[in-house]
Amino acid sequence: MNTKNVKAYGTESADADLKQLSIDRREVLTKDVEIDILFCGVCHSDLHFARNDWGMTQFPVVPGHEIVGRVTQVGSGVSKYKEGDLVAVGCLVDSCRTCNNCKDDLEQYCTGGWVGTYGGYDKHLDTNTHGGYSETIVVDEAFVLRVPENLDHAGIAPVLCAGITTWSPLRHWKVGKGSKVAVVGLGGLGHMAIKLAHALGAHVTLFSRSNNKTEDAKKLGANEVIISTDEAQMEQAMGRFDVIIDTVPYAHDLNPYVNTLTTNGTLVVVGYLGPLDPTIVTVPMIMGRKAVAGSLIGGIAETQELLDFCGKHNITSDIEVINIQDINTAYKRMLNSDVKYRFVIDMKSLKQ
Amino acid sequence: MNTKNVKAYGTESADADLKQLSIDRREVLTKDVEIDILFCGVCHSDLHFARNDWGMTQFPVVPGHEIVGRVTQVGSGVSKYKEGDLVAVGCLVDSCRTCNNCKDDLEQYCTGGWVGTYGGYDKHLDTNTHGGYSETIVVDEAFVLRVPENLDHAGIAPVLCAGITTWSPLRHWKVGKGSKVAVVGLGGLGHMAIKLAHALGAHVTLFSRSNNKTEDAKKLGANEVIISTDEAQMEQAMGRFDVIIDTVPYAHDLNPYVNTLTTNGTLVVVGYLGPLDPTIVTVPMIMGRKAVAGSLIGGIAETQELLDFCGKHNITSDIEVINIQDINTAYKRMLNSDVKYRFVIDMKSLKQ
Ligand SMILES: [Zn+2]
Ligand SMILES: [Zn+2]
Ligand SMILES: [Zn+2]
Ligand SMILES: [Zn+2]
Repeated sequence: MNTKNVKAYGTESADADLKQLSIDRREVLTKDVEIDILFCGVCHSDLHFARNDWGMTQFPVVPGHEIVGRVTQVGSGVSKYKEGDLVAVGCLVDSCRTCNNCKDDLEQYCTGGWVGTYGGYDKHLDTNTHGGYSETIVVDEAFVLRVPENLDHAGIAPVLCAGITTWSPLRHWKVGKGSKVAVVGLGGLGHMAIKLAHALGAHVTLFSRSNNKTEDAKKLGANEVIISTDEAQMEQAMGRFDVIIDTVPYAHDLNPYVNTLTTNGTLVVVGYLGPLDPTIVTVPMIMGRKAVAGSLIGGIAETQELLDFCGKHNITSDIEVINIQDINTAYKRMLNSDVKYRFVIDMKSLKQ
Repeated sequence: MNTKNVKAYGTESADADLKQLSIDRREVLTKDVEIDILFCGVCHSDLHFARNDWGMTQFPVVPGHEIVGRVTQVGSGVSKYKEGDLVAVGCLVDSCRTCNNCKDDLEQYCTGGWVGTYGGYDKHLDTNTHGGYSETIVVDEAFVLRVPENLDHAGIAPVLCAGITTWSPLRHWKVGKGSKVAVVGLGGLGHMAIKLAHALGAHVTLFSRSNNKTEDAKKLGANEVIISTDEAQMEQAMGRFDVIIDTVPYAHDLNPYVNTLTTNGTLVVVGYLGPLDPTIVTVPMIMGRKAVAGSLIGGIAETQELLDFCGKHNITSDIEVINIQDINTAYKRMLNSDVKYRFVIDMKSLKQ
């Protein structure tokens, strides 16, 4: 197969800084869309993957799955997009397309194995897939999304992962006008959860360990902030929330939050993969038919729905735009939660 | 208030055997139904409460919340029942009746505090409520249930707790024709879960630690038995079940069962109150939008629905009928799971 050599940023080992690499993109096949990447958001997964924190990285790795760009070329069988369209690519670039979940627009739960935008298996080139820290990407139109033109091109990038990761559980657990939603953690995911739940008409509460996030949370759309270390406030919050979106990326105690769920309420873990520590106690779950669940990004149709919703409500992420050359510093700052609330790479910087 | 002295069985301390006591029943008030108790099922909670295992028992205690009997008298304002009706009383004899959950027929989650059939607070007599190990009981008609006459009077008793505890989650999580349901544990709760899920049209699987329950499970309506200690069988069961009803009454590892849930599946804990040990791991929950939830008995309307369903499908519990004088032996055997699957007291034995 013909390939095109393009500039990218990535790493060849877990302990090396990211640097400029060159990678191959496949030629544009019948159903393919070639995208000139304008912006790419920086997700915690990018860092974990580059550092091989999950022990499954194959190098070299080129991270990036919050991709916004312009279509530069389409295959002869492409019907949805044409040259010049503003489009996006999120965490998935393919799936089996035949399992029940794929048929139900739940490609993120594909039992045949979905293909990650980076670090997945690229069946066309028989290599790993490479993500959005690059000049261009070639993706089957079925996994390309349309971006409303009214939205800030940089600010919309994080919606492709941080946004959909919170949108999907809000929708699945039927958050709407009058719902009582709480969000645990105010980072990339948490700030999108607040914006989206607010735009859906919910009453939104942020759980925070300290008071210094109150002003920011309210600006984002939170109606109130509950200080989770204040026992009196937590006591008062008992039984209040229909849905809690827990975005905290490390092990922490879910029990105080479960207590604040109402009957039939669900706490959805979206930020932490691992054993719950401390363990959860079943008593409040049984006494109030409460649930603890997990949720992973979202499907393609649902991501399009979110982009359209963002277009209608003029919602984008709060971001800090960086040059690709600053990515290693950005990773360090991200580890210290020193960003409001997402870094987005201006990919012009790679082309210079 | 006038009271009537009746014979009962109970205990005045946690370490004493149950023995014959005499208790007071209130006079029949406007909305009250007086019931001559024919049969009373023996629930694990009876034993835990008598032994003060939960540290909240006030003595004397008269257990029993799986009550079947005949109406002997009704108050002037009672419209639903008349003398001679075959009726039942389950785990609740009152609730606040004004909270949102009470209004939604979810009295078991009453936030104003429901009144347990025993060990609750009896506002009429300013004492503890006393349960079904007694000659008669007086209950507000709103908490009395109608029993279809075609059902075996002894066998229907356990439906009032063991039955509704499994029915409520089966209904809430929408089990019906074609659902894939698994049941963990084959005791009083588990055997009802199998019968009810089968009657609802589900494909029913029992998880068991050994092969010696296979024949019994199939007789009860299970389509198959998976040996949970057999890794190959558990591997094959990955991603299969829509709903798992976990009836095991002690701490155990939920993770292998969570793995057998399908996308959007829920494991419902109904048998164990306490910290999950070992802890659960969020990875399969996130990767498949799976949930772990709890559920508590059921509301009054739902219990009536279950009794009617049992009448239509001729479902009762598999029981061993005992005399009240054998209750202490029955408790010992119950602790050893030496009963198929529920003891039911023939209350004639108390009247002799
Ligand atoms: Zn991401
Ligand atoms: Zn699939
Ligand atoms: Zn019971
Ligand atoms: Zn109530």
